[in-house]
Amino acid sequence: MERITSSDKILLLGKSDFLVDVSKGVFHTNHGTINLSKLVGKKFGVKIKSSKGETFSVLRPNINDFLERRLARLPQIVSLKDCSLIAGMTGMSSGYRVIEAGTGSAFLTTFMANLVRPGGKVYTYELRSDFFKSAKKNIDDSGLSEWVEAKNRDISKGFREKDADVVVLDMIGAEKIVPKAHKAMKSGGFLVVYSPYIEQVKSVSAAIGMESFTGVRTIECLVRDYKITRDFSRPNTTMLAHTGYVTFARKI
Amino acid sequence: MERITSSDKILLLGKSDFLVDVSKGVFHTNHGTINLSKLVGKKFGVKIKSSKGETFSVLRPNINDFLERRLARLPQIVSLKDCSLIAGMTGMSSGYRVIEAGTGSAFLTTFMANLVRPGGKVYTYELRSDFFKSAKKNIDDSGLSEWVEAKNRDISKGFREKDADVVVLDMIGAEKIVPKAHKAMKSGGFLVVYSPYIEQVKSVSAAIGMESFTGVRTIECLVRDYKITRDFSRPNTTMLAHTGYVTFARKI
Amino acid sequence: MERITSSDKILLLGKSDFLVDVSKGVFHTNHGTINLSKLVGKKFGVKIKSSKGETFSVLRPNINDFLERRLARLPQIVSLKDCSLIAGMTGMSSGYRVIEAGTGSAFLTTFMANLVRPGGKVYTYELRSDFFKSAKKNIDDSGLSEWVEAKNRDISKGFREKDADVVVLDMIGAEKIVPKAHKAMKSGGFLVVYSPYIEQVKSVSAAIGMESFTGVRTIECLVRDYKITRDFSRPNTTMLAHTGYVTFARKI
Amino acid sequence: MERITSSDKILLLGKSDFLVDVSKGVFHTNHGTINLSKLVGKKFGVKIKSSKGETFSVLRPNINDFLERRLARLPQIVSLKDCSLIAGMTGMSSGYRVIEAGTGSAFLTTFMANLVRPGGKVYTYELRSDFFKSAKKNIDDSGLSEWVEAKNRDISKGFREKDADVVVLDMIGAEKIVPKAHKAMKSGGFLVVYSPYIEQVKSVSAAIGMESFTGVRTIECLVRDYKITRDFSRPNTTMLAHTGYVTFARKI
Repeated sequence: MERITSSDKILLLGKSDFLVDVSKGVFHTNHGTINLSKLVGKKFGVKIKSSKGETFSVLRPNINDFLERRLARLPQIVSLKDCSLIAGMTGMSSGYRVIEAGTGSAFLTTFMANLVRPGGKVYTYELRSDFFKSAKKNIDDSGLSEWVEAKNRDISKGFREKDADVVVLDMIGAEKIVPKAHKAMKSGGFLVVYSPYIEQVKSVSAAIGMESFTGVRTIECLVRDYKITRDFSRPNTTMLAHTGYVTFARKI
Repeated sequence: MERITSSDKILLLGKSDFLVDVSKGVFHTNHGTINLSKLVGKKFGVKIKSSKGETFSVLRPNINDFLERRLARLPQIVSLKDCSLIAGMTGMSSGYRVIEAGTGSAFLTTFMANLVRPGGKVYTYELRSDFFKSAKKNIDDSGLSEWVEAKNRDISKGFREKDADVVVLDMIGAEKIVPKAHKAMKSGGFLVVYSPYIEQVKSVSAAIGMESFTGVRTIECLVRDYKITRDFSRPNTTMLAHTGYVTFARKI
Repeated sequence: MERITSSDKILLLGKSDFLVDVSKGVFHTNHGTINLSKLVGKKFGVKIKSSKGETFSVLRPNINDFLERRLARLPQIVSLKDCSLIAGMTGMSSGYRVIEAGTGSAFLTTFMANLVRPGGKVYTYELRSDFFKSAKKNIDDSGLSEWVEAKNRDISKGFREKDADVVVLDMIGAEKIVPKAHKAMKSGGFLVVYSPYIEQVKSVSAAIGMESFTGVRTIECLVRDYKITRDFSRPNTTMLAHTGYVTFARKI
Repeated sequence: MERITSSDKILLLGKSDFLVDVSKGVFHTNHGTINLSKLVGKKFGVKIKSSKGETFSVLRPNINDFLERRLARLPQIVSLKDCSLIAGMTGMSSGYRVIEAGTGSAFLTTFMANLVRPGGKVYTYELRSDFFKSAKKNIDDSGLSEWVEAKNRDISKGFREKDADVVVLDMIGAEKIVPKAHKAMKSGGFLVVYSPYIEQVKSVSAAIGMESFTGVRTIECLVRDYKITRDFSRPNTTMLAHTGYVTFARKI
């Protein structure tokens, strides 16, 4: 069981949840003030009381705690269910070299960076400088910047990297980038395109059809939450019914 | 670009797909015979012709190629979409220590082993010796046995491991194992239970309610495939409408 | 084309929609006042201006206009999609004799009354007198009271009717009423049970299994709305993900 | 309880189901021969034995029995769930005047004819003479021909009817017919377009946007079947995942 240091990020789990830097020293919540400096040297899993007497468990945060609680969201993010499928269906794991365009809020970027550790890398391109700045901050804040190379750069002239295991496109006009993505991938690598609208899927599918790809597949992922009590169970009344379509293709 | 060695597994992509060991020397298909030994020293991505003149691309297989094409399936597997969500929603990645019961066909086992590489480990328990034998073979065949400790052992007396990041239960009677899973997990770790029937979800949820867990959530993942042509697009006519419910809970 | 009389209900379709009685004479809206008496003798389809200069089309309302705009909703209603399936899958139409318990807000009651016209009848039972009063008002207001016999009566002792084409149960404890429903139905008639929770479906299914029924089927209906524009189309972001399960069984 | 006559159609419910004409006299099944003439004068609900000793219940068939068991299906039909929603969401009932193009197999035609009885009518147009002949036979066989006017006629020059309550288009090129449909409808009437592909929905939506319609809505209906046993319940493993999109619009 590891001990807490002053440079750690910690997850406080109580009536509300917080992801904070221990280096902050003191943390003010509407459940009272928490003296973080007292935690240094304690083991993760310890409990701490706020000035108002509320108890919080102190945990080591994982990537999703960061993504949910700390990531600043400027443009629309790729939701966790879609990130999961993109990773799972491309076999993304330690050592993968991934290219991404655009970075957006860097939600998917940091999700993937966490998976390619160590030895792999995510090369991510963002054209808009405001998005890039916000994304860069998120990446740094995630503690995963070692596995990300973020660039504020137009990719209409192509990617600088070669032999990528995966290229992910989440951008308007992705269909124009498909040939450049093909060039930047290794044989057997995966192209993944995320498209909110079916019209984008069609343009991208047509562009994919012009290159040597196989196993082309477009899917949509729906996650249904259930309410389970001792006596009764039923799906939740409302659900997130659409985020985007995900198209996969494999370079021959 | 890496070169092919005689100890490699390769993916042959042509009119049909095959995942074969180069050490086999010669491979017979209904598209003709392929002389694998000629491939040694060539680069991945090379093309080869069969005796019938069919061309195959030679690629380095990834985890999903193995799972789809080589894994012997004795009991029902956890489908790729559910594996993806289990991994994605627990932040599973390099270094994670995961406990699994039961092993089944080892589909989820090898999927997770690929993610926790290097430094992590999957400890997997299977009671039935026939399932265990088949699973062991699959794990060895996957090339990931370094990151798996497979045991033909009853877990009704508890797990031997401590401080697991994730415990996954995919077994009949999972509700009885929940307290033992709680004991084997670290604070902030995730319990994941896969249940084909809602009645199992209810028993498991009740058992979870008896221990100190937070963030309890039961979901169902539906993947819809689309048929996209130049002129027309529509969802596929039929779909896989149910595999299982996945319940998540986090130890406080 | 029919002409408007002072005893008609009319649908005013403009920036907002209203279903009003012409007999009201003057109708006040936040889009201005509308002089309804001027409409008498005009043809349906005519347009009228409010005191604020807003134009409204005057249409003859149909059953759904009433259900959406006028029905007072005390208890939870059966949604239109589920009403539609209940009717469609039992072949409900002119001449059907239908028994319903409980009446609730009389949404399904009036929906069915509209279908069995003329010659058929809906016999509806409600135990709670507050619900019954509200339902009675709704039925009268719908103009369909000729085809409804509403009763503030406990059905635990059985139905008074015989040879019903359809018996619909939308009530807590429906499983106990199944044998009584069976007795009140004609051979070939349909039992329909609406259940928000799966546990209710199970109890009802068990009760159905004790009687001579065939073609037992439990379904759930999901309606997905689409956003269609000139350039882009996609499913709506959120949807109604659950209302209830509908179980059908046919008496042999 | 009505008695069976020699001109009736009857539903035989046993190990298999049959919808037969009593006038046939003798009916041969693989469960043995059934002497239908013995049934004349008996009450509906009676049981009869085949020559092999199998028991069948004799029921009066409803519209769905006919649609499922007797309707000859040449072109693709509109499924029962979609028929139900089309009827339910337009308030279709006794007295409605409905125009339909094209007739296809007349599944939706007869479904609607059953609802508009008595006093209403379905005017249905079919261009192809092979479809028309098959549809005509189905309509006659359904016993509902009194409420259907079927025409083997091109509707590109418009409909002959006026003031329809509902116009349903289920045909290639429906977008071109939208203005003619608008002309043939009464104010407050509903246009319904059934489209297997989203591209058709877009064309139709654009055409609808050119006319005075309100309440435009495109939906997709998914029906999920459940498997319920004493101990376990779950959705069926596979489902019908797509039939078509249904677009509704109301004439102002």
